[in-house]
Amino acid sequence: MSSIPVGILGATGMVGQQFIALLANHPWFTVEWLGASQRSEGKAFKDAAAWRLPSHLPDAVATKVVETAAPGHAPKLVFSGLDSSVAGEIEGAFAQAGHIIVSNSRNYRMEPDVPLLIPEVNADHLALLEAQGAERGWKGRIVTNPNCATVVIAMALAPLRQFGLQTAMVTTLQAISGAGYPGVPSWDILGNIIPQIGGEEEKVESESNKILGSLSRSKARVELHPVKVSATTTRVPVQNGHTASMSVGLHEKPPAEAVIDAWRSFTGRPQDLGLPSAPPRPIVYLTDVNRPQPLLDANRDGGMVVTIGRLRPCPLFDYKFVALGHNTIRGAAGAAILNAELMHREGLL
Amino acid sequence: MSSIPVGILGATGMVGQQFIALLANHPWFTVEWLGASQRSEGKAFKDAAAWRLPSHLPDAVATKVVETAAPGHAPKLVFSGLDSSVAGEIEGAFAQAGHIIVSNSRNYRMEPDVPLLIPEVNADHLALLEAQGAERGWKGRIVTNPNCATVVIAMALAPLRQFGLQTAMVTTLQAISGAGYPGVPSWDILGNIIPQIGGEEEKVESESNKILGSLSRSKARVELHPVKVSATTTRVPVQNGHTASMSVGLHEKPPAEAVIDAWRSFTGRPQDLGLPSAPPRPIVYLTDVNRPQPLLDANRDGGMVVTIGRLRPCPLFDYKFVALGHNTIRGAAGAAILNAELMHREGLL
Amino acid sequence: MSSIPVGILGATGMVGQQFIALLANHPWFTVEWLGASQRSEGKAFKDAAAWRLPSHLPDAVATKVVETAAPGHAPKLVFSGLDSSVAGEIEGAFAQAGHIIVSNSRNYRMEPDVPLLIPEVNADHLALLEAQGAERGWKGRIVTNPNCATVVIAMALAPLRQFGLQTAMVTTLQAISGAGYPGVPSWDILGNIIPQIGGEEEKVESESNKILGSLSRSKARVELHPVKVSATTTRVPVQNGHTASMSVGLHEKPPAEAVIDAWRSFTGRPQDLGLPSAPPRPIVYLTDVNRPQPLLDANRDGGMVVTIGRLRPCPLFDYKFVALGHNTIRGAAGAAILNAELMHREGLL
Amino acid sequence: MSSIPVGILGATGMVGQQFIALLANHPWFTVEWLGASQRSEGKAFKDAAAWRLPSHLPDAVATKVVETAAPGHAPKLVFSGLDSSVAGEIEGAFAQAGHIIVSNSRNYRMEPDVPLLIPEVNADHLALLEAQGAERGWKGRIVTNPNCATVVIAMALAPLRQFGLQTAMVTTLQAISGAGYPGVPSWDILGNIIPQIGGEEEKVESESNKILGSLSRSKARVELHPVKVSATTTRVPVQNGHTASMSVGLHEKPPAEAVIDAWRSFTGRPQDLGLPSAPPRPIVYLTDVNRPQPLLDANRDGGMVVTIGRLRPCPLFDYKFVALGHNTIRGAAGAAILNAELMHREGLL
Repeated sequence: MSSIPVGILGATGMVGQQFIALLANHPWFTVEWLGASQRSEGKAFKDAAAWRLPSHLPDAVATKVVETAAPGHAPKLVFSGLDSSVAGEIEGAFAQAGHIIVSNSRNYRMEPDVPLLIPEVNADHLALLEAQGAERGWKGRIVTNPNCATVVIAMALAPLRQFGLQTAMVTTLQAISGAGYPGVPSWDILGNIIPQIGGEEEKVESESNKILGSLSRSKARVELHPVKVSATTTRVPVQNGHTASMSVGLHEKPPAEAVIDAWRSFTGRPQDLGLPSAPPRPIVYLTDVNRPQPLLDANRDGGMVVTIGRLRPCPLFDYKFVALGHNTIRGAAGAAILNAELMHREGLL
Repeated sequence: MSSIPVGILGATGMVGQQFIALLANHPWFTVEWLGASQRSEGKAFKDAAAWRLPSHLPDAVATKVVETAAPGHAPKLVFSGLDSSVAGEIEGAFAQAGHIIVSNSRNYRMEPDVPLLIPEVNADHLALLEAQGAERGWKGRIVTNPNCATVVIAMALAPLRQFGLQTAMVTTLQAISGAGYPGVPSWDILGNIIPQIGGEEEKVESESNKILGSLSRSKARVELHPVKVSATTTRVPVQNGHTASMSVGLHEKPPAEAVIDAWRSFTGRPQDLGLPSAPPRPIVYLTDVNRPQPLLDANRDGGMVVTIGRLRPCPLFDYKFVALGHNTIRGAAGAAILNAELMHREGLL
Repeated sequence: MSSIPVGILGATGMVGQQFIALLANHPWFTVEWLGASQRSEGKAFKDAAAWRLPSHLPDAVATKVVETAAPGHAPKLVFSGLDSSVAGEIEGAFAQAGHIIVSNSRNYRMEPDVPLLIPEVNADHLALLEAQGAERGWKGRIVTNPNCATVVIAMALAPLRQFGLQTAMVTTLQAISGAGYPGVPSWDILGNIIPQIGGEEEKVESESNKILGSLSRSKARVELHPVKVSATTTRVPVQNGHTASMSVGLHEKPPAEAVIDAWRSFTGRPQDLGLPSAPPRPIVYLTDVNRPQPLLDANRDGGMVVTIGRLRPCPLFDYKFVALGHNTIRGAAGAAILNAELMHREGLL
Repeated sequence: MSSIPVGILGATGMVGQQFIALLANHPWFTVEWLGASQRSEGKAFKDAAAWRLPSHLPDAVATKVVETAAPGHAPKLVFSGLDSSVAGEIEGAFAQAGHIIVSNSRNYRMEPDVPLLIPEVNADHLALLEAQGAERGWKGRIVTNPNCATVVIAMALAPLRQFGLQTAMVTTLQAISGAGYPGVPSWDILGNIIPQIGGEEEKVESESNKILGSLSRSKARVELHPVKVSATTTRVPVQNGHTASMSVGLHEKPPAEAVIDAWRSFTGRPQDLGLPSAPPRPIVYLTDVNRPQPLLDANRDGGMVVTIGRLRPCPLFDYKFVALGHNTIRGAAGAAILNAELMHREGLL
C-alpha cells in the first residue's frame, strides 16, 4: 500500500507535536505538510518549535518548512490541532477548499452535521458527512473527536447503554498535558489541586449525548442519547492520563459481572477492520483494588485503551467505578488518527 | 488560669507530632506526658522520634522521656493519635483507669455511647458521656473526632440540613499526610493518582449520619441523620488538604444565595464560647471560580476552617460544590484539641 | 513611632505580592502606593491582580487603586519588584525624582556606586550612597539586594572569609517560585529537572565578589572579594526554597567545629539594631544528617534564615556542605525590606 | 539461536521486577527461575509480588512459582537484584555452587577479583574472573555493575581519560526509583529535596576509580584510575533518571569541541559486538541549552544511553557539564543484562 500524504494544522503546538510523534512510523500516513501561525511560517519545523516530547522528533519532519495555516499546498487529508480561537475559521476554509479535516478542536464538534467520533462507539455517524456536504456546499469535510475527558467517559458509558443508561455523575482528575504548552503554571499545580477547568464541564456534560446517540433515520442528524451527565472537572499534578470517578444510574441494574463483561467484550469497527491504531480491546477492566492509575495504566496499548476499575455498588445510583485514559493520545491526537484510519478504510478519504 | 496538664498517646507518630506542634503555645493545655510503643520507652522524645514537621519541636517536649502506652503516670486528659491496630485496647484501658481520652482513632467512633464530635455541629452529643459511664462502668470517658475526610464533608453538609438534606455524592482528592509516616511511598504517588484508600469510603459513608444526627430523647443514643452518602476516595500528590467534589440532593432546592448564606452564617458552640482553637467562621465560602485550593486555602485560620467554592446547580441532584479542609489539623489533631477545649468549657474534664 | 508610608513598584507581580504580604503587619512601614504597568492603572488592586499567596490579601491593599509606574504620587520610600526589562529606566526615573528605591531587580546591582546589600554582611556598603548622589546628581538613591540564589550562597560564604576563602563550587536546586508567575510551565518541571536557568549562573558567579568585598578607602567603590565562584543552577519541582550544594577552598583549613562555630556565631547590624525582619541568628546550622530541606527549613524564622547542614571534608577542596534559603523572602522581598529597615535606622530614609 | 535460561535473585523487589520487564522479549535470555525471600516461597510470582511497573508483567513469569533464594534449581546464569543486607552471603553461595551471578548489589563491587563492569568502558576487566576462580575456589563467578549514580558519572568521565582526567566534582539529583519500594516516603520528597542519600557518596567517590582503571599486567587486579571524585548526592521528586552536575579538571584542557567529539565518538565492545541491549552510541551529547532532562531524555534508546549537555568552561576546574542516565535501566537491571550479554558473546557463560 502506498503512503497517504497528510498535513498537520497547528503543527507547532502540543497536539500538533503529538500528531507528529504518533505518525512517525505510521503504516499508512506520512506527514508531508505542516501549517502553523505566521510566526512560524518559512522556518524549518525544528527552528519554529521546541520539541517537548520524550519521543524522537523524526528528521524528515524536523527539516520540513512550516507554512501558513491556509489551504493551498496541503494534501487532501489534514489533521488539525489548532487552538479553538482560530480553528473555526481556518478549518472551515480548508473544508471549503476540498480538504478532509480530522480535527481535535472543539469548534465543530456539536454542529448537527459534523460527526463527533469515537470509532468504536459511533462509526456509523460518518454518514452525517453526506448531509454536511449537501448543506454547506463544501468540497471537503470536517470530522471531529471529543474533548479529552469526554473520550474516557463516553467510552466507559457506551457499553452500558444496553442496561438503560440514565445518569452519570463524574468527577475528573485531569493531567496537566491536557492544557497544552505553556498551559498550567507550575506555581498553580505543584503539590496542589485546581478544582476547575474553564469550559470543560460543559463539554463533558453535552458531548456524550451526541457521541452515544443514534443516527436519525434521515442520516442527517444524531438523536441525542438521553443520559444526563453531571461533571466536576479538576486539574491534578499528573503528567498524562485523565482519571474519572463515576457513578451511573441504569434503568435495570445488572449484576456486576454483567457490567464487567460488557466492558471487556466491547469492540467496534476499528477492531473489526484491524485499524493500525486500534487497541485489541478498547476497554480493559482491571481487578486490582487500586487501579487504574495514570502512571501505570495510561500508556497501555499505545495509550489507546480506556482502563476501568473499582466497580462497586453506589448507595445513590447503581454502580460506581473509576475510568482512565491517555488524554493526549486516546483523548486527542491518537483519537483523530483513529478517525482518519476509519475513514480511509471506509473509503471516505 | 492555671495550665491543664495533658498527655499524648501515640506521641511519636505523625498525629502525635501534630498534637505537639498545635499545643506548643496553647493557652490552656500543657503537654506533660508522652506515651508510645515499647520501642520508644525510656528515650527522650527527640531520640525516640524523627521530628517531621516544619514547625519547631518545643524544647520542653524534646527532652521529655517517652513512657509506655499504659495508664499510670499520665494526666487525666489524654489525646490519642494511636494507630487503630492498638487504639481499641489501649484507649479502653485508659478510660477504665479514669482518663478522659480525646481520640483521633477510628475504633470507638461508631459506638452508640461515644460522641463523634464536630463541636460546631453536634456539641450536644457530649451528653452521651453520661450513658457511656453508666453502661461501661468506666471512671473515665472516650470522645472521638471524625475521619479526616469526613470532617470536611460533614461540616459542609451540616448547614444544609435545614433544606432537607437527602443525598451526597462525594469524590475526595486526599493529601498524602493523611496516611501518616512513612505512609504513601513516593513510588506510588509522585505524578500519579491512587484511586482507592482502604476503608476510607466506608467511614465517609457512615460517620456523617452519626455526626449530623440528633441526640435521642433519652440522651443515650444518636438518631442517625437520614442523608445517604456515596463516596469515592482517592489519593493525590498534595502534602496537606483534602478536597471533596460534592453533589447534594435537598428536599427543597433553595436559591444558591441561601445555600451560601447558610454556610457563611454557620457557627456553633466553639464560636459562642470563644474556644482558643475555634476559627471566627468555621466555613468560608470563596467566590473565585477556581477555589478552594489546598496550597492556598488549607492553612486558613490555623487550618481550622473548611473552605467551599464553586456552588452551582447539578443536572442530577440539586447543587454541586467543592469543599476543602486541612486533614491533619481540622481533620485530626486540631479537631481533637477543639473537642477538649469544648469539654473543658462545658465542665467535663 | 508613626508609620512610614511606602510604595511598591511592580505591585501586581509575584515579588510585589510578596512585598504586600510581608508588609501586612509591619511595625514601621505601611503600603500607601501601588505602581504597575498601564494594564493595571486605575483598577483596584484586587481587580488588577490575582492574589496567588496563601497569606491573606490585606483589605486596605485590596481596594487601593493601582497607579502607573511613574514618579509623582508615590511616597519617598519605594520598594521595587519590577521586571528587569523595565526596571532600569523606571527605577532611575524614581531616583532622579527624589525617591529611595529599594530594589530587588538586577539592573543596578553591579553598578559601582550602588550598594548590593545583605545587611548582616555588608551594611557599611551603604556608604556608597554618597558617591551615588554625587556622581549621578540624583535627589534620591537606589539600593539593591542580590539574586535569590546568590543570597543563600553569599550568606553561607561570608563567615568563611576569616579562613581565607578562595573558591566555591556550587550547584543549586532552585524552587519554581523564583521564576515568578506564570513562570515555569508545569509541563517542563512536574517530576522533572531543568538543568539550566538563563542568566542565573553569571549572577551567582559575580555578585558574591561585590557582596563579600570591602568598601574602598574613598568609600566610593567596593574592592571585590577575590573568591572564585563556579555555579551550575538548576530548577527542581519545589515550591519555595533554593538549595545549594557547595564546596569551598580556604587558605587555611580550620577544624570543622570552627566552621560551624563561625556560622552559628555570625550576626550583623540587623541583629545589633534589632531590626523587625532580622532573624535572631541569620545562619542556622543543622546537625541532622539529611538537612536542610526546603519543606521543613525554608520558612524558619519567617523565611529570613539561611540553614546549613552536612559539613564534611571535600576530597578536592576543603569542605562541602548544603545551604538553603527562602528564595522569595530572604532571597527577594524580605531582603529588600530588611535593607529598608537598616536604612531607616541608619537615618538614610 | 536457542534461548539461554536465566534466574533472578530478589525477583519480587523493584530491581527484580525491572529485570523481568527488560527480559520480557530478550532475544537470548528467558526467565526460567525466580528466587526471593521465604515470605514469597511457593507462591506464584503474581501472588508474591505487586507488579509496580507500567510495562506488562509477562504471563509466563506471572504464573511461575517463586523459590527460596538458595542454589539448587536455578539455571547457571542468575541475575541478582538482592538487597545488600543479604546479597553477600547468598550470591557467594550461588557462585560456590557453580552459578554465574550477574549482580546489581554493592557487596562484591570493590572486591579486587570481581569485575565492576561498564561494558563500553572496561570490558577487559572480565579477565579478573580467572583470578577470582583461582583464589576463591568457586565453580561459578560473580560479576557486578556499578551503583546507579556511578554509572552515569563513570560513563561521562571515561572518554575524558585521554585528556588526563584528574578531578571530578559532582552533585547528583537522584530519582526516587533508585531507592526501591517502598523506598522514599512521599511525606519526605513531595515538593522537597533530601540533600543526602546514605552511603551513596562513598560509592560514587570510590567505584569510578576501579571502573576507569586498567587491568594489571597479571590480569588479577585493577590499577585504580587516579581521578579524585568528590560527590554530593541528593534525592529529588523525579520518578526515573539520575542527573549529575559535574565539573572536571584535566591535565591538559582541550577545546570544547574535542570534549564533545570524545563523547560522541565513544563506543566499546557492546557496540562492536552488536549486543542486544547496547545503544548505538552509549553517550549522546545534546546541544539544546536546557538539556538533558529526566522526563525527556532518560528513556532514550531504551534507557541505555547517558545524555550529556551544557558543556562550558568552569572558573575553578576545566569544564562543567550535566549528565543524565536512567537509574533503573542503565543504572541497574539494564546494566546487568548488558554485562551478561557481553559475557555470553565472550564465551564466559
